[in-house]
This record gives sequence, structure tokens and C-alpha cells, in this order.
Amino acid sequence: MALQYNEFYHRHTGLTIGVEQVLFSKQSSFQNIEIYQTDTWGKLLVIDGMVMLSEQDEFVYHEMLTHIPLNTHPDPRQVLIIGGGDGGTAREVLRHPGIEQVDLVEIDETVIQACQKHMPEIGNWDNPKLDVRITNGIEHIKESGDRYDVILVDGSDPIGPAVDLFRKEFYSYCNQALRDNGVMATQCESPWVASYHPHMKEVYDSMNELFSIHRPYLASIPLYPAGLWCFMLGSKSENPLSEQALKRAETNTTSPNIPFKYYNPEIHQSAFSLPEFVREIFLP
Amino acid sequence: MALQYNEFYHRHTGLTIGVEQVLFSKQSSFQNIEIYQTDTWGKLLVIDGMVMLSEQDEFVYHEMLTHIPLNTHPDPRQVLIIGGGDGGTAREVLRHPGIEQVDLVEIDETVIQACQKHMPEIGNWDNPKLDVRITNGIEHIKESGDRYDVILVDGSDPIGPAVDLFRKEFYSYCNQALRDNGVMATQCESPWVASYHPHMKEVYDSMNELFSIHRPYLASIPLYPAGLWCFMLGSKSENPLSEQALKRAETNTTSPNIPFKYYNPEIHQSAFSLPEFVREIFLP
Repeated sequence: MALQYNEFYHRHTGLTIGVEQVLFSKQSSFQNIEIYQTDTWGKLLVIDGMVMLSEQDEFVYHEMLTHIPLNTHPDPRQVLIIGGGDGGTAREVLRHPGIEQVDLVEIDETVIQACQKHMPEIGNWDNPKLDVRITNGIEHIKESGDRYDVILVDGSDPIGPAVDLFRKEFYSYCNQALRDNGVMATQCESPWVASYHPHMKEVYDSMNELFSIHRPYLASIPLYPAGLWCFMLGSKSENPLSEQALKRAETNTTSPNIPFKYYNPEIHQSAFSLPEFVREIFLP
Repeated sequence: MALQYNEFYHRHTGLTIGVEQVLFSKQSSFQNIEIYQTDTWGKLLVIDGMVMLSEQDEFVYHEMLTHIPLNTHPDPRQVLIIGGGDGGTAREVLRHPGIEQVDLVEIDETVIQACQKHMPEIGNWDNPKLDVRITNGIEHIKESGDRYDVILVDGSDPIGPAVDLFRKEFYSYCNQALRDNGVMATQCESPWVASYHPHMKEVYDSMNELFSIHRPYLASIPLYPAGLWCFMLGSKSENPLSEQALKRAETNTTSPNIPFKYYNPEIHQSAFSLPEFVREIFLP
């Protein structure tokens, strides 16, 4: 097979990836889901024409969405993941020894089934601390009380079923579902793509109103548009750059149980440094 | 016109850019040079099938190649640029008020002519402190004595005329051409592309033998392979993360004369934080 997967983030400009085989292709009730064998990045999960992850680069997204908020929290036990049907975020959460329960709330069962079949090593599906629920994340969180220490929003882009995950109303539900020293993080698009800026600013402004501490942070994700990705952290009381948080980052990365490939204590700190053009998206 | 520019960093995987017009296309004695009008990134300079810069993202490469070494040096006056025929690196150097002379040594006059005609705003060509010489950079540096404070290696990838700029012999000439507290920096490829790793390691090991301080640093460059780019700094005595260097970064970015779009004092520091997989390229 000699196919090219093309994803354009603006007009005819974007990514092109050699595809050797189409392993899975299905229109679910929510979205179009495809898994390809690529020539360079291993298997690739694509939803509604947007790369979600590849086997070769998924460690960046999952480590950075997980360990920065988890090490910001002094003692995370109860974690909620909204989305995350590939299992990678739950895998990283479960590496923290103090975790008691991870609720993974995915709206689309087809994503989980496809990933469990074709990319099983991304997840840690048999872990007894993991509770998978197939339901709407927003409905789940509205009925959650305040029982989570950390909430990780691992949804797709603000198109299709994930569009509500970029609205202030949703972050206010997250805030209510977090305990007193709770922390949340969400993926928040590419600073290099101008059409994303209104969404990024909306998330920033919403978190500003809802959380006493809110900070964007960055990571290099080669298969996301233009290769640089933003995350947004909201925290009720804990500063991600406090001495204690940095000490936890140090302690948790020296454990032989967590083979980090991107995250480390220096990255925990430097990810919050924004280039000037990124700072201007949030504070124009 | 409805053309796609494709650049593959491995097999059929890479960048694709919509091209509206071919503005320049010429095979010089050294290499193939093209300038396109793109649909997203303004004008694009391509040499031997590799993106050198676009009007919209060039600020990252030029700011990061320039200001980190220039603020590492306590008082840079004499600067040598090897390559840099588009003029962007010289433009950034000339923003530092203490600069007395910039020697830009480019092997291929055609690059300069094409950029001056089609992308004139990238450079600061009329500045009287700029001395442009069309000659082989290695020959120039061998005959330079020790007269430079800073040397910036702004060459293309280790294919074609730039291949010798990745060898230890070249860095030893740079070392000899630098004054006692001299600093150099060079572009050093993408950590995401495995085929570049031997070149990156060779540069790292060469600088390790030649300079008392040598450090890789990173920047997000969306049109370079996989969007993350490495630079290598070599320094005879000055530490880029010393209190004095960080203070110079602070002072030099508050000047209204330098409208930074990427670099700032936080980035000066955080650029040296390496993700684990990058650290392992240099220290396996």
C-alpha cells in the first residue's frame, strides 16, 4: 500500500504521513475513527481527520498531561480522566503509587475497543484501580460531588463531541468536582495555529475566573499541528512551581517504576516558560 | 497555482505546504535554491529540498541562534556568521548596541541575491557594521586569528556544502578564532529524527573536547522536521546560565529596540532543559 495521510491545519499546509496499512476504519455514533500502520511513527490513531496519537510520540502528550498536575497535587488519590479512550493517560496516572482510583469517562466505546485491539500496549487496562465508564463526561462530572483530587481532560479538538470541553461552564463543573486542593489540566491546542487562539484564550480566561492558580504550559508534539502543544493547568491552592511540587517531581522521577521519556524535573519547570508570541495569545 | 511542497524527514512522512507561486528557482554552483509564496507561512526559502525559513516563523531560529550566545558573552563586539545568507541572523546580532562589526561569510552569493530581492525585510543589509564576504567559511576562519567574540554557524543540514560544518576540525578552527571569553553556537538538527542523531552526537562530543562549557538547547520551529530544533553552544569561559548572563538577558530584552517574538529571559533559561529522550541522544 502506498497511501499518504494528510492533515492540514491551514489551507493546504500541514502534516503528511506515509501509510502502509489501514488497520481500522469506522464511523461510530459520535465520530470517524481510524488506525493506520505508518512508515515512521508506528500505529497512528486518527479521529475525524485529526491525529490523536502515534505509538512513537504518544509518551509526550500522556506524560505531560499527567505528571505536571499529579506532581502539583500534594497527595493525589482519586483521579478523573475525561476522554482518554486510548488508555495512555490512565497508564501514566497509575504509575503514581498513591493512586487509589482512576475513573476514565469516555463517551465513545468504539475508541476504547479499537485501541484495545490494535494498540493494547498504550493502556494499562487490567489494572484493578481503573474504572472505565462509557458516558458523557459532562453529565458524569455534574453528578460527581467534590470527590476528585485531579481531573485530566483528554479530549479531542473543539470540533465534534469535544466542543463543550472548551467552554467555561465545563470548567466550573470541574472546579466543583475537585476537592479543596484539587488540580486540573486540559490539552489546549497549538499556539502556532491562529484559528486555535480564540479557544486557547477562552480556556485561559475561564480558568482565570475559576481557579486561584492557572498556568499554560508547553510540550513538543511532532504529530500535532505545527509541533508545539499547549496545556492549561488550573489549581485551587497548589502552585505547580512551588518548592514542594518541584521536590515531588524530583522524587517521582527517580522511582524506577516510572520510565519517563519526556518529563523530568527540569521539564516540569521549563514547560511553563512561554515564548513571547505565546504569551501574547493569553495577554494581548 | 495549486502546488504542494513536500519535505519528508523519513520515508513518506514530513511536511506539506500549499504553494501559490514559485518566485525563484535556480541551481547555483553549490545547491538548488527556491523561494515560494505559500498559503500559510508567507514566503518560504528552500535549499536542496529542505526548508530554511519562512517569513512567519523565521524569528524563532534567528532569535534563538543569536541572543542566547550574545547574552552569554559579557561584551560582544566582533561577531562572525558562517552561512546566514538570508540576513536574519545578522539582523538580530545588529540589535545589540555594543556590536562593532559583523562579518557574514556566505559561500553562495545566489542565496543572498535571491533573499535580497524576494525577502528583503528579513535582513538589515544596509547597516554599516555588516561586512558581507562571499567565500568558504572554513577557509575564512582558518585565517582569522583570534579576533571574534562570538561565532554563529548558520548553515544548512549536513548534506551538500554544509557537511564540513558538522565536523570536529571545523569546531577547532572556531575555537582558535575566538578570543579568550568567546562563545559559539550552531544549529544542530531535530531530536525527533533518528537519522540526525549521529550528527548531533558528533557535534556534542566535538564541543565537549574543545570548549570548557558546552550545552545543547532547544526551540520550537514549526517548519523544520518534526517541529523541534536543537542548537549547540560552546563557550570558553562564560556559562549561559550564570547570574550575569541571565541579567544580560533581562536587560537586553527590556530595550524597546529589540522586538522579541520568541526569546525572553525565561526562554533563555528554559531552552537548556532537555526532555529525557533528547538527553539520551547526547548521554546514552
